[in-house]
Amino acid sequence: MARKYSSEALAILVDELSRLPNIGRVTAQRLAFHILKGPAERAFSLSDAIRAVKEKVRYCDVCWNITESETCEICHDARRKPETICVVEEPRDVITLESTGEYRGLYHVLHGALSPLDNITPDDIRARELMQRMGESVEEVIIATNPNIEGEATALYLSRLIKPLGVRVTRLARGLPMGGDLEYADEVTLARALEGRTEL
Amino acid sequence: MARKYSSEALAILVDELSRLPNIGRVTAQRLAFHILKGPAERAFSLSDAIRAVKEKVRYCDVCWNITESETCEICHDARRKPETICVVEEPRDVITLESTGEYRGLYHVLHGALSPLDNITPDDIRARELMQRMGESVEEVIIATNPNIEGEATALYLSRLIKPLGVRVTRLARGLPMGGDLEYADEVTLARALEGRTEL
Repeated sequence: MARKYSSEALAILVDELSRLPNIGRVTAQRLAFHILKGPAERAFSLSDAIRAVKEKVRYCDVCWNITESETCEICHDARRKPETICVVEEPRDVITLESTGEYRGLYHVLHGALSPLDNITPDDIRARELMQRMGESVEEVIIATNPNIEGEATALYLSRLIKPLGVRVTRLARGLPMGGDLEYADEVTLARALEGRTEL
Repeated sequence: MARKYSSEALAILVDELSRLPNIGRVTAQRLAFHILKGPAERAFSLSDAIRAVKEKVRYCDVCWNITESETCEICHDARRKPETICVVEEPRDVITLESTGEYRGLYHVLHGALSPLDNITPDDIRARELMQRMGESVEEVIIATNPNIEGEATALYLSRLIKPLGVRVTRLARGLPMGGDLEYADEVTLARALEGRTEL
């Protein structure tokens, strides 16, 4: 591969970029030439940002969300209600939920979901750490894992552990997406929407 | 924007990545989380590769192709025929043409094409440097600029400069792409293919 490029450094960059998800060799080459053609400061600040994210970012000691200190901003925030914990699979889900501006409780990031096929067991996700938080003044656990097989299995597993402790366990509503069209809804979503129908 | 992420370093990385061409904020965030979740060595080698490409890569003193030394591998190669110079717009075009394995001459990279609308004049591309090479034993200049308005204008401009020197000026054939279907060819390509038809 390196032979194709008249610069080893360029060949290496194309290789490195093509390791990123959904970046094929053609896109990687286009990105590499863009970086090469642009000003050095732009390339250096991108390079530094990549390094910094690995050097500075760590996980919150309490909720396993991303942070740069021991505990994250949300766990720190005295205005957040500690009685409610919303359980998500990944740190990006916290960002998505926060963007609604609707939720005022705390979070717990599992870093994965149960998947027997991929050999992901309760020991591979932060389930034990969630259970350790149950001792506190927790009244409700909202399980916001993804609405797919792995997410549902994880929700079921956690609810079986938490409910016996007398804590309320809820799940994000499944139904028709807002702005969607009935005609384009899949059968499973439609069945769930019927099942979970609400009074008007 | 930074407020959305619980880490400043992550916010900066998403910003930096979304400055790349065709990388929107959603893709940038996905890439940033991929880098964050992966091993530190992977992130560091990507970071180093980006820096290295700006630090090591320079342009060939002769043909303006990318290289890491004063002159590029192709200009250095004694087996290449110096009588023929193939003129391209960008360094990536050299890679594309080399991948055919059909061309044994030298190159000249213009780093652009004439475009009055974008204010790109002959002084903005390496046209003067090409003319300076005409003193040598050059017999043919193959103009391989892109088959679009800017590329055609550049080809016309260069041929008017070079032809009076008694050097043969040719242009890559325009016609139907191999493996294509007549039905899907656009009118301009089809007209060019008719015009440039060859004896069987």
